[in-house]
Amino acid sequence: MAKQLHLGAFMRPVGIHTAWWRYPGAYADANFNLEHLVRFVRKLEEGRFDAFFMADHLALLNLDMAALRRSATATSFEPFTLLSALAMVTERIGLVATASTTFDAPYHIARRFASLDHISKGRAGWNIVTTSNPEAALNFGLDEHMEHDERYDRAREFCDAVAGLWDSFADDAFLRNQQSGIFFDPAKLHTLNHKGTYLSVRGPLNIARPVQGHPVIVQAGASEAGRQFAAETAEVIFASARTIEDGRAFYADMQRRLLGAGRAEGSMKILPGALVVVGRSDEEAAAKLKLLDSLVHPDSSLPNLSIRLGVDASKFDLDGPLPELPPSNQSQSGQASLVKLARAQNLTVRQLAEIVGGYGGLKLVGTAQRIADTMQEWLETGACDGFNVMFHSVPEGLDDFVDFVVPELTRRGIFRAAYEGTTLREHLGLRRPENRFFAAP
Amino acid sequence: MAKQLHLGAFMRPVGIHTAWWRYPGAYADANFNLEHLVRFVRKLEEGRFDAFFMADHLALLNLDMAALRRSATATSFEPFTLLSALAMVTERIGLVATASTTFDAPYHIARRFASLDHISKGRAGWNIVTTSNPEAALNFGLDEHMEHDERYDRAREFCDAVAGLWDSFADDAFLRNQQSGIFFDPAKLHTLNHKGTYLSVRGPLNIARPVQGHPVIVQAGASEAGRQFAAETAEVIFASARTIEDGRAFYADMQRRLLGAGRAEGSMKILPGALVVVGRSDEEAAAKLKLLDSLVHPDSSLPNLSIRLGVDASKFDLDGPLPELPPSNQSQSGQASLVKLARAQNLTVRQLAEIVGGYGGLKLVGTAQRIADTMQEWLETGACDGFNVMFHSVPEGLDDFVDFVVPELTRRGIFRAAYEGTTLREHLGLRRPENRFFAAP
Repeated sequence: MAKQLHLGAFMRPVGIHTAWWRYPGAYADANFNLEHLVRFVRKLEEGRFDAFFMADHLALLNLDMAALRRSATATSFEPFTLLSALAMVTERIGLVATASTTFDAPYHIARRFASLDHISKGRAGWNIVTTSNPEAALNFGLDEHMEHDERYDRAREFCDAVAGLWDSFADDAFLRNQQSGIFFDPAKLHTLNHKGTYLSVRGPLNIARPVQGHPVIVQAGASEAGRQFAAETAEVIFASARTIEDGRAFYADMQRRLLGAGRAEGSMKILPGALVVVGRSDEEAAAKLKLLDSLVHPDSSLPNLSIRLGVDASKFDLDGPLPELPPSNQSQSGQASLVKLARAQNLTVRQLAEIVGGYGGLKLVGTAQRIADTMQEWLETGACDGFNVMFHSVPEGLDDFVDFVVPELTRRGIFRAAYEGTTLREHLGLRRPENRFFAAP
Repeated sequence: MAKQLHLGAFMRPVGIHTAWWRYPGAYADANFNLEHLVRFVRKLEEGRFDAFFMADHLALLNLDMAALRRSATATSFEPFTLLSALAMVTERIGLVATASTTFDAPYHIARRFASLDHISKGRAGWNIVTTSNPEAALNFGLDEHMEHDERYDRAREFCDAVAGLWDSFADDAFLRNQQSGIFFDPAKLHTLNHKGTYLSVRGPLNIARPVQGHPVIVQAGASEAGRQFAAETAEVIFASARTIEDGRAFYADMQRRLLGAGRAEGSMKILPGALVVVGRSDEEAAAKLKLLDSLVHPDSSLPNLSIRLGVDASKFDLDGPLPELPPSNQSQSGQASLVKLARAQNLTVRQLAEIVGGYGGLKLVGTAQRIADTMQEWLETGACDGFNVMFHSVPEGLDDFVDFVVPELTRRGIFRAAYEGTTLREHLGLRRPENRFFAAP
């Protein structure tokens, strides 16, 4: 069988492009309308997507009010509550929640993901973020934000503690013997007693081991520290390559790191994010994107650029080139890729802002055939294992992708015609992890 | 219209009695079987219950393994994930989640309850606990547990910050004007900037104001500090009176405190917890309870008593009277009520343990008529506004209550024949709180 494509749908905001909600026909409240979200996740399941991928932020991201008042992200559901609700109206699609290792406790995180995994019967995934936004710190009583590399050290310890908590009970610990009155076998309960550099967690967790053993671990870090962390822990990488060459380089680097970390080939799937715009012709698709970009207001673009660069871009000469920047304590890789883009295309600060104000990452724009061509080329030339798809608008962009691109991918034999398994791990071809404390029954 | 009864169903564990899961015909996995829980909450909604009330613990409560291995609470769903899921299969019943002010952040709590309230279209309630179990502290990196009264001071500040976060947006803040590109009106966004003794939270919250303004606030504290806190903040009190006299005394004391705190009469509903056992005759009901009590294993009862007393009861002479106890740093009121019970009935430590090992609180045992008689007497003589009902076993006890007791209460005109409102506040007759920062639209 040909190498198979995996598809996630990146869904908060429902469109990644700043102006998605202003696009003609868009549901402006889609991000915060439960009935719409139910319709979307069911449509994605009709399209046999591997996962519904929910981004998250622990703050109103940008208190520059001129920009913020234009942002559809100002009100959103919290991931665990939304995904548990969506688990009840779907049967197969994976449900990936973003949760921070910086502003939450391992016991809470382990427990919520285990609960979501049981409620969804094995469809939970954890997108681990180390939370780079200093505004979030202020919502949790922290004036200073942790240094970038230190955040990853803490994240490593955090994930290890969470995995240990998930393994508190052996898979066959629960007897529920009404006759003897023994509910579980104490020999199959492990108390973690984790005491590390950053965290102390006794355990055990008060919930049975997740259906998947562990929910699927997702990571998006692309800096040096982020890549190394992902190579050690991630099973899905939400990548940010903008070109197929960058994609291949990243893919090769991550495979090398994966093996270097002693992990098995194929135990990590790499899914670059991609904004898709489908048209009946390439011209129609290009016109859609142009229309969408034209709906970005200048008030939105400069603050966005400042966040991405980690410095206040409004102080720069807008019509001059991007100046040299101090190292960012937020997202080093995000800054580096924008600097590279500006230098390569000789962009002024204003031009760079316009790109960032819309969507600055990989865009797949054209007919269903052209989009499938590109996806297939990335897949078959070692640039990815699939894509984390973003839609230019909802419902149009989502419906078009499922109705036109998915059948084309399936026709080519590179995407499932039906779900084969029932868990997210099975969709992704990832093995169920063993319990570190107990042998399999 | 006669004073109306309010009913909550206390549902984790699904039976409060230690031996519920061993009762003949009980679903031993009911606590952790989503299909069963869906069936139960729908049955409760058929019975027009005000709320499904989910208790919670942040630890395996009792690491005395001889007792713990007999406990059906060893594995349970996490409240926010479960209640969000149940919101999707119900339309009217309130959904009350327990969440701790000691081991979580106001931003997380405010956000999750707001999200649950939006998902359920106005049916969320927050049972505020200050978490008295020192075992939970160890799961969150704390060796020492806060002093009892300090926990309430922190809880007061915590609730105030959460309420302020809920009021971040005016109810009519969101414009979503596709033409102008303005998503919300910045004049209707408030940044909290809370800096207090225990907490610092900038805000604003990244979710629209809850459907109910604020989710309904529930409290169970019964100590002096707990009562005062409840009088200031609670809209529902989960009370623990064991006799109608105690119920009246508590009710009167809380009304006095309520008015003393400057709050309006009727703005707080008092619901004692009650284990109900319904029979076709009083004798049959009594026999059911006797059978249930006989299923409590001695291994379960002594550690339970130790937890409730806050001291290791296994060191006492089991066949002697309860000795004088040091003050408990955990639940002062819990200790005091057990001491009172032991002294009043001249119980040995062993006898007290047997009562606690089953269920030590108020029990309503008899025919549907007798149970309705008792409920009506409590309601009409100023001992309560309703009950937080616990079932002796599921599904039997729950079905019997809905099929036999509820119709009897309705026939008497003291319980609704149909839901009149759609939100939990409307069921309880509680007003929607005003936004502290913005006048109503």
